[in-house]
Amino acid sequence: MSTSAALQPQGQRIDDSIEEPQDARHRFEGLTASEFKTVFRNHPAGVAVITADAGDGPVGLTATSVFSVSAEPPLLVFSVSSQSSSAPTILAADTVVVHLLGAEQLDIATLCATSDIDRFADTTIWDTLPSGEPYFTASDTWIRGRVVSRMEAGNSTVVAVHALEASVPDDLSDADPLVYHNRTWHSLGEHSRI
Amino acid sequence: MSTSAALQPQGQRIDDSIEEPQDARHRFEGLTASEFKTVFRNHPAGVAVITADAGDGPVGLTATSVFSVSAEPPLLVFSVSSQSSSAPTILAADTVVVHLLGAEQLDIATLCATSDIDRFADTTIWDTLPSGEPYFTASDTWIRGRVVSRMEAGNSTVVAVHALEASVPDDLSDADPLVYHNRTWHSLGEHSRI
Repeated sequence: MSTSAALQPQGQRIDDSIEEPQDARHRFEGLTASEFKTVFRNHPAGVAVITADAGDGPVGLTATSVFSVSAEPPLLVFSVSSQSSSAPTILAADTVVVHLLGAEQLDIATLCATSDIDRFADTTIWDTLPSGEPYFTASDTWIRGRVVSRMEAGNSTVVAVHALEASVPDDLSDADPLVYHNRTWHSLGEHSRI
Repeated sequence: MSTSAALQPQGQRIDDSIEEPQDARHRFEGLTASEFKTVFRNHPAGVAVITADAGDGPVGLTATSVFSVSAEPPLLVFSVSSQSSSAPTILAADTVVVHLLGAEQLDIATLCATSDIDRFADTTIWDTLPSGEPYFTASDTWIRGRVVSRMEAGNSTVVAVHALEASVPDDLSDADPLVYHNRTWHSLGEHSRI
């Protein structure tokens, strides 16, 4: 999945004209950006929305780059592209909220991946935590954490977050996780189990 | 998904006795390791196997922590736990091969997540690239790259890799990607599409 795809799924639309390789196994040497994106289109990922407010108003970013790296201390990482409109706020914020989305929250994923709109215009779908961060109330799985380190990586920044607080649903088996792969949304459940 | 889960799926078995929270939305404050793992159990991920040889023999590591962070230059990241038997080699290697697995390669995922075995004992399933790295020949989507930076994050290291070479199948729609979620394996396809 490309960087733009990883962070803003519909950003991939601009790549629709990229030709797929023609050989059964095409080997690239010295990868171009489009070749690299083609390879990563084959890699699915869970979908998260990251919210923050660094004093300049709330921002929300759809990301497929969230993973847990350490349980003790509880640390997660995600990446944010410098091309994202949310990047300045996310990179300036001391704390963020990372929502791990289920299929029922597809609307939040698409909202926070849509450019040139006010993602917080509908005030019925978000609220502010006592600690000040904006969050989407329909998401029942989220983590609030403090940014503890950052690593530059090309045109993106990898951000490490120390989890301070979290919300989870009673029964994880009720959750129907949302997955993004090759420009399409999927849900996991018994139907997808191997 | 927990760190151990992210890197070695069956490592999670030790956590089977962890109680799930009882409230419909349980909120943790100041997360313990097991609480953090519970939250991340709700986050699915694509499955990769990372191979390397730093001169001390081949190693292979199953990881659900691989994502693309930049297309120009083509960079990906993954994390490796200090508890992983492959960590010393992966962290010493100049170059690695990152295989993005399909459901048909579930056996490679489980092989490289099984402790206390020689993961390279069956010499019919792997080979060595002209550049020297070991790779699993059944995987038709892989990236060979050079390690360009590392970031410590708790008991893990986040590794950034510059892609040098890649193999992809002719038609991505033929691929049936492998996903790991809440201790189970899933495959994506038309059956999982929203």
